[in-house]
Amino acid sequence: MTVQHSKRSLGPGTLLYPEPALLVCVWDADGKANTMTAAWGGICCSEPPSLAVSIRPERWTYAALLSRKAFTVCIPSEAMLAGADFVGMASGRRVDKFARAGFSAEKAEFVDAPYVAECPVVLECSLSDSLELGSHTLMIGVIHDVKADADCLDASGEFPDIAKVAPLIYDAGSRAYYGVGRKLGEAFSIGKKLLRPEQD
Amino acid sequence: MTVQHSKRSLGPGTLLYPEPALLVCVWDADGKANTMTAAWGGICCSEPPSLAVSIRPERWTYAALLSRKAFTVCIPSEAMLAGADFVGMASGRRVDKFARAGFSAEKAEFVDAPYVAECPVVLECSLSDSLELGSHTLMIGVIHDVKADADCLDASGEFPDIAKVAPLIYDAGSRAYYGVGRKLGEAFSIGKKLLRPEQD
Repeated sequence: MTVQHSKRSLGPGTLLYPEPALLVCVWDADGKANTMTAAWGGICCSEPPSLAVSIRPERWTYAALLSRKAFTVCIPSEAMLAGADFVGMASGRRVDKFARAGFSAEKAEFVDAPYVAECPVVLECSLSDSLELGSHTLMIGVIHDVKADADCLDASGEFPDIAKVAPLIYDAGSRAYYGVGRKLGEAFSIGKKLLRPEQD
Repeated sequence: MTVQHSKRSLGPGTLLYPEPALLVCVWDADGKANTMTAAWGGICCSEPPSLAVSIRPERWTYAALLSRKAFTVCIPSEAMLAGADFVGMASGRRVDKFARAGFSAEKAEFVDAPYVAECPVVLECSLSDSLELGSHTLMIGVIHDVKADADCLDASGEFPDIAKVAPLIYDAGSRAYYGVGRKLGEAFSIGKKLLRPEQD
């Protein structure tokens, strides 16, 4: 029996699932720690470990990031929801967003940028490339270090436990935030039943 | 009272939360529909609506995508977990991955590529740029259309309901898949209590 999938065309749009809610941090033109929320981002390379995050030229973060060529990407947890949403609305041109959101700025260890101490996971990045795309400029960052709160690590101590990190998922359609749900299965494992090792 | 955040350095790595599990589809060199799982991807521009997805040159998808300059990015749902994991392990060089995973290939409407009919959300893309980064090449795609299953739309009919889409979250640390959890709040809203409109 074939299941019918009646697809409706929604036109061009930025609907992808899941999208993250990342906090991008830089030292601004005044040397002040600044941060902004970015949903257009993700990992883009394994070696060197790199991420991409897109920023509008109108953003206060933009010139500072291009000038310092250093930034951090911090993963806010569910407990930081209001602050994470706020720093996507206010501008560091006029406001000390760290102070207003109740965030603590720490100096990164490997790059010339601050990070949000309250975020359970922090990626320290240096700008390796940028690409103007239209409304946004894609910033590529080589990840020099991942820092995680000790109490968010899994049993091995090697990786964060995603349930303890409790990251935000941004839904661009309904403009809402969601949490991470239950574990569904192991990767590179649950699909093995479809493999025929002698062929594949 | 200041909460102490004892951060541990994990070294360079590709740990970002959440990461997606995307199915990238192309017509391959033989004209066969092929798909692969990609976790290194996300939206990268609002205007024109664009996404970025990174692919290793060793992948069977790689040359086909660069040659046709067209692809789709399909969002698998929880029910498709084993198939989505499988197409990240097998190679289209040797296997008809659509057939083996039980996926149906449909022709995209706006670009010269197939899509996975069972995926509740499909983004039809044309390649607008590419950037070699190291292990992976970043592919930028302009999104010409988003298609969604009619029964996955929200009450407005304008957007997918993320709970009905039930997308996969990939955890690169533990190499496991997770589902989307509960709604936490409205974006551009829950942080408003921190705004002072006369200043910000």
